[in-house]
Amino acid sequence: MAREGANVAVTLSQIVGALGGELHGNGARVIQRIAPLAMAGRDDITFLAQARLQNFLATSQAGCIIVSPGLQGAAQGANDLIVTPDPYLYYAHLTQWWARHVRPQTKPGVHATAVVDATASVAESATIGPHAVIGAHASVGERAVIGAMSRLGAHAVVGDDTRLAARVELGDGCRIGQRGVVHAGAVLGADGFGFAPAGASEAKHWVKIEQLGAVVIGDDVEIGANTCIDRGALGDTVIEDGVKLDNLIQIGHNVRVGAHTAMAGCVGVAGSTSIGAHCMIGGAANIIGHLQIADHVTISVATVVTRSIRQAGHYSGIFPFDDNASWEKNAATLRQLHDLRLRIRELEKKLPS
Amino acid sequence: MAREGANVAVTLSQIVGALGGELHGNGARVIQRIAPLAMAGRDDITFLAQARLQNFLATSQAGCIIVSPGLQGAAQGANDLIVTPDPYLYYAHLTQWWARHVRPQTKPGVHATAVVDATASVAESATIGPHAVIGAHASVGERAVIGAMSRLGAHAVVGDDTRLAARVELGDGCRIGQRGVVHAGAVLGADGFGFAPAGASEAKHWVKIEQLGAVVIGDDVEIGANTCIDRGALGDTVIEDGVKLDNLIQIGHNVRVGAHTAMAGCVGVAGSTSIGAHCMIGGAANIIGHLQIADHVTISVATVVTRSIRQAGHYSGIFPFDDNASWEKNAATLRQLHDLRLRIRELEKKLPS
Amino acid sequence: MAREGANVAVTLSQIVGALGGELHGNGARVIQRIAPLAMAGRDDITFLAQARLQNFLATSQAGCIIVSPGLQGAAQGANDLIVTPDPYLYYAHLTQWWARHVRPQTKPGVHATAVVDATASVAESATIGPHAVIGAHASVGERAVIGAMSRLGAHAVVGDDTRLAARVELGDGCRIGQRGVVHAGAVLGADGFGFAPAGASEAKHWVKIEQLGAVVIGDDVEIGANTCIDRGALGDTVIEDGVKLDNLIQIGHNVRVGAHTAMAGCVGVAGSTSIGAHCMIGGAANIIGHLQIADHVTISVATVVTRSIRQAGHYSGIFPFDDNASWEKNAATLRQLHDLRLRIRELEKKLPS
Repeated sequence: MAREGANVAVTLSQIVGALGGELHGNGARVIQRIAPLAMAGRDDITFLAQARLQNFLATSQAGCIIVSPGLQGAAQGANDLIVTPDPYLYYAHLTQWWARHVRPQTKPGVHATAVVDATASVAESATIGPHAVIGAHASVGERAVIGAMSRLGAHAVVGDDTRLAARVELGDGCRIGQRGVVHAGAVLGADGFGFAPAGASEAKHWVKIEQLGAVVIGDDVEIGANTCIDRGALGDTVIEDGVKLDNLIQIGHNVRVGAHTAMAGCVGVAGSTSIGAHCMIGGAANIIGHLQIADHVTISVATVVTRSIRQAGHYSGIFPFDDNASWEKNAATLRQLHDLRLRIRELEKKLPS
Repeated sequence: MAREGANVAVTLSQIVGALGGELHGNGARVIQRIAPLAMAGRDDITFLAQARLQNFLATSQAGCIIVSPGLQGAAQGANDLIVTPDPYLYYAHLTQWWARHVRPQTKPGVHATAVVDATASVAESATIGPHAVIGAHASVGERAVIGAMSRLGAHAVVGDDTRLAARVELGDGCRIGQRGVVHAGAVLGADGFGFAPAGASEAKHWVKIEQLGAVVIGDDVEIGANTCIDRGALGDTVIEDGVKLDNLIQIGHNVRVGAHTAMAGCVGVAGSTSIGAHCMIGGAANIIGHLQIADHVTISVATVVTRSIRQAGHYSGIFPFDDNASWEKNAATLRQLHDLRLRIRELEKKLPS
Repeated sequence: MAREGANVAVTLSQIVGALGGELHGNGARVIQRIAPLAMAGRDDITFLAQARLQNFLATSQAGCIIVSPGLQGAAQGANDLIVTPDPYLYYAHLTQWWARHVRPQTKPGVHATAVVDATASVAESATIGPHAVIGAHASVGERAVIGAMSRLGAHAVVGDDTRLAARVELGDGCRIGQRGVVHAGAVLGADGFGFAPAGASEAKHWVKIEQLGAVVIGDDVEIGANTCIDRGALGDTVIEDGVKLDNLIQIGHNVRVGAHTAMAGCVGVAGSTSIGAHCMIGGAANIIGHLQIADHVTISVATVVTRSIRQAGHYSGIFPFDDNASWEKNAATLRQLHDLRLRIRELEKKLPS
């Protein structure tokens, strides 16, 4: 959007004035863009977050580089510098400050096409987009933004400064705290997947277990596009403070996700599993139901977690990919692996140590 | 929602009057909540469905426990009992009865903001939510509920008592039978993924194959949030009676899912595969295209099915997860597995039996 | 829809007149349906694209079969024939011609319920469906179709002849070229998943990195239902011309997908990965972030790509599924695989060649 004529032109003094850091260079220098280190030019600001990238410093054309004190020496060249203990965190704050400058401000108010139940409570400073539907007794906090075609069910609660993008569902009785962000298409509070078998043999069929719980989401939670979090069967599904969920994630009923845990896209967590705080779950990982995962656990991409994990640590289970012909040979042998072990044992018996 | 002041207070006599079962205890006891066995208190009703949990019986504080005749003896303590042959099924029926009591009744009628084509047929007792769009010649059955911002295409058919949540797409010519439930964001009837290659080498490109079939869904089917079922290429994609699909499932064109089969979240079924009746497909499993899967097949979580399965049974293919260091060693060796087999054979030649 | 009384009845002369090919047979023959080879009857047209299916030719009841010159001899029977060098491509064109005949024409114009910002630019011949929301400075090309309840953000651009189905999100500053198709529920331009860690130990939390880039989509791109493509962090996420993406795919921020690459359903591509042109990515495959994938690479279903691929070719990494008991034995042994290798080495030392 900065490229759309938003005409961003800020000085280094303005940046340091707003965000802190020690400026070494020309405070009047005008910056027009934030750019990656390898691509930054004279009108750009960039950052160096990883020491292994410091070779770029010598040749960088960037107008200004954000660096840590330890790399300040290596960076002394033609570039202006902002020195700060954590350049990546500084960059994060810079993007937030930048976004406030370049993005159009959302005007507060309720759009004429929105459908808001008479019993709903909406803070005066909240913004309700076109075609939003807000149910009976729902509550929308101050400065909250409800996107176009979102739906808030009966008794739903949206905290202050929380922003629901277009087409978000927050079902009956579900709550989200303050400063949350929910991206388009997310469904918070569909029924959990619960059925009791009835009948026998060919007449066997499923009888629905009504899902009587809700979804309760803490403060500072971000939820990705088209992600689904099911309501609890009897109790609630709980997402604690500071959790970050990427797109297309499935969270089953009665799951608990501990504070500040992050999950990449396409993860699935089956019902009643409890995940600790400060965990990192790689994309497309799957965690089966009724497990306990400790705090500070890291799960690799696409790993299938089939047992509880009681210890912090890094866990993996990925089939290593290969050229197809090699894979075919190894995969075929894998189906005889148990037999191979027995054959090794036989050989060992014949050749005792 | 029961917690929102819905003021649920039912007696055990009311429950047994509605759902049957043999009451051993005080029919006048007031119940306010359904709760899991380990958490149930004096105002709660709970159930014991698995014999291995019977240790909880001695210490349970539950006001009433639903038990089978076989466990009635072990349960004789301070608790009131409802004795019934299948406590889990009784619990399912109880949740349904409970939901009818505590949930606000949906008022029938067509919402003022809905867009219904003049040629559509809508039963008088159907409920059309805000912003629904109903196409030409579409048909909505009696007591059906069409949620906010759902879209029914031309010639779409919704059976009696079927409920589409908010933002459901039922495409042109697609049909769903009676007593169905479709959760928010589901897309029934997008185009199947079909393209013919044209051109050669760098000029190679894809030519779209228009998808001329539809999606036909039987009675008593439940479909999860953001699940996608593609329309057939020439014939139809068919979901038979009683099928239960969880969230974020992908069903390709021309697939057939047999009656009463259940799939957990994130499953993918590629085009033209036919799955039998009464199957259970674990979460994130993938079944490639053009396969035949027999009736009564169980597939484990995350298993990739690459060949037809002709026999009922339980099938799995999961890479076992481990701490990352152990996984790395084993995964590296896995890429030499075929060679290891040859080395074992060499050793066996030198040490004949 | 052809089955809904659209009353399709075309002659072989009409088909050959519109699409070319050499007709051997009765040009006045009336065709009512396109059908698969094994199911086609006297009123149907079908095609033979794979030589291995030529056994069907002898017994086919089809009114007309589309065949290649090489199989024309084998097909000489009771059936009329259309001879053409690439029958499958001919079939693709036939479905397109058929769809134009049997489907109701979309009437151009802006629906009364659509919300279009005063600064948006909408071509006169564009079609805006019910409940669409179009933001400031958005631009909709000629003959473009914006479906019901779709949302176009500020500065969004939709090219000529591109069709967004219902409930599509095209976020602020995002663009799609000409002749594109986007299916229901797709979210183009949600925030990429980017956070900087801040604080230490139990006070550790995530600070949002605002995503300042956009999504830029070329011409002739098709995007499946509920698929998500995130906007770039600083630069843009780029989908080149002719790319075909199936349903429920996740494309992370700053990814580039090369021209004419096709991905089946449920694929995940993590941030900053660059995929070449003319690649084929199997369903549920996952590609981790910051990789380079060459042109003309084929990835098998469910394969996890954890390293860059520099050479065209076919790559796989699938755990072979088995009956559950066999899988359990082999999977248990897999966790000792590295040890087995060491034991083989010990044996080899005792039995030197």
